[in-house]
Amino acid sequence: MADGQAGWPLADRGVAYGDGLFETVLLRDGRPLLWDEHLARLARGCHALGIALPREHELAAPLAEAGPGLAVLKLTLTRGSGGRGYRPPADPAPRLRWQLTAFAPAEARWREGVRVRHCRLRLGIQPALAGLKHLNRLENVLARAEWDDEAIAEGLLCDSHGRLVEATAMNLFWRRDGRLETPRLDRCGVAGTLREALMARLPIAEVEAGPEALMQAEAVWLGNSVQGAWPLARLDDAVGQPLMRWPLGAVHRAFQAEAHRLLGYPAP
Amino acid sequence: MADGQAGWPLADRGVAYGDGLFETVLLRDGRPLLWDEHLARLARGCHALGIALPREHELAAPLAEAGPGLAVLKLTLTRGSGGRGYRPPADPAPRLRWQLTAFAPAEARWREGVRVRHCRLRLGIQPALAGLKHLNRLENVLARAEWDDEAIAEGLLCDSHGRLVEATAMNLFWRRDGRLETPRLDRCGVAGTLREALMARLPIAEVEAGPEALMQAEAVWLGNSVQGAWPLARLDDAVGQPLMRWPLGAVHRAFQAEAHRLLGYPAP
Repeated sequence: MADGQAGWPLADRGVAYGDGLFETVLLRDGRPLLWDEHLARLARGCHALGIALPREHELAAPLAEAGPGLAVLKLTLTRGSGGRGYRPPADPAPRLRWQLTAFAPAEARWREGVRVRHCRLRLGIQPALAGLKHLNRLENVLARAEWDDEAIAEGLLCDSHGRLVEATAMNLFWRRDGRLETPRLDRCGVAGTLREALMARLPIAEVEAGPEALMQAEAVWLGNSVQGAWPLARLDDAVGQPLMRWPLGAVHRAFQAEAHRLLGYPAP
Repeated sequence: MADGQAGWPLADRGVAYGDGLFETVLLRDGRPLLWDEHLARLARGCHALGIALPREHELAAPLAEAGPGLAVLKLTLTRGSGGRGYRPPADPAPRLRWQLTAFAPAEARWREGVRVRHCRLRLGIQPALAGLKHLNRLENVLARAEWDDEAIAEGLLCDSHGRLVEATAMNLFWRRDGRLETPRLDRCGVAGTLREALMARLPIAEVEAGPEALMQAEAVWLGNSVQGAWPLARLDDAVGQPLMRWPLGAVHRAFQAEAHRLLGYPAP
């Protein structure tokens, strides 16, 4: 792993309050995938939090450090140090750090699909932060800590009103009555860059739906900009009892092919 | 300011996810006030997040560094580094850091009371984190960024259902029909140590109430374990228009005296 400069000062607001944002970018031979989408989301986050957006050449500087093959670049941007308590400093100096890690996607999950469960934790409703990839991620940590079984690839999250939102680290898509759908993310959740790019290319409707939508679905996928698209082969409830199984077929593969084209991954 | 050891490693989960807790403790001549309450809240947080509680002698070590007079000790505990993404590491090594700062309370606010406004931001409902002093504090940062006017001492927060919760960095108390009340904190908010100690000594009812409760109140206070108790002299709406004024009297002073006894502050 290569690091961007030193660690974080003791008084950085990133650790004090989670006062910042991050992006996790797939690189192939040093070239970032979905870079425009990552920059756009970071810009939205900076606008919402009132943090100055770094120049693109600063954000792109670590790309020169990447070797051949696949890697993941994690960019973390904080408001920097200072301020009196929660109050942001009048003249903040944002702090940017990066980490670069070699990466291999979970190819078996592309082919065989994944087993996923519902999480017990419900995401809080917070429109002021919805969609952003900010550093306040304790809900995701607690949700991911709900299971230990390596056979379970991800956990699905509903909001406090019981509406489907996402998985702990991936967005959620399904096909129902021939229509592609994904949950609205204007009250909570992270608007993934793969989701963004897919919505620009496919007729995917943003909907408000409870878990029953998945029981009516012909196909369900999880996706993000690093792992690509995983079809759901099986869905369990929050205590690990099976709710639903989907045989993988042409419908699954077609969606995966679209997602993987965006990331330079093979169509499974 | 004295620091506890170095800063944070790049991969610490404190900055990555806000995966940790903090305590802000008032010291007088190196002696911590409400220490039992701080330790108890930290223990509750460690239990909820699944982080091992440091031994008391580790937590108390920085006290030896404090000089005479008043200081604030900030203890920050993270889950440490490691894990795959949000998933907590199987064998975590929590990381404890501290900062010590000389302190002088805002005595004029004790005497004259404060002007406070309603915030526009609503706190999300998250029972899994409610009451804890965890590091996911972007809501507080955004709420505190809503005003710049130095004449406004604090901002009041309601939850997404419109129920009163707290101020950005203080708990909220009022007296209505001769009864002391404070908002329930089982869905969001931070359960302050001064609040805890006051509730053990005074008949304060935890209630579910909207902002109208304040319009019916004979007296309103904000309090925390560092600043003591501020009476509200004036309450503004979220655009700065006055909603209510309270002349300060014996009722205000009696509550302040109780709070200040706990912190070794004079009764105003």
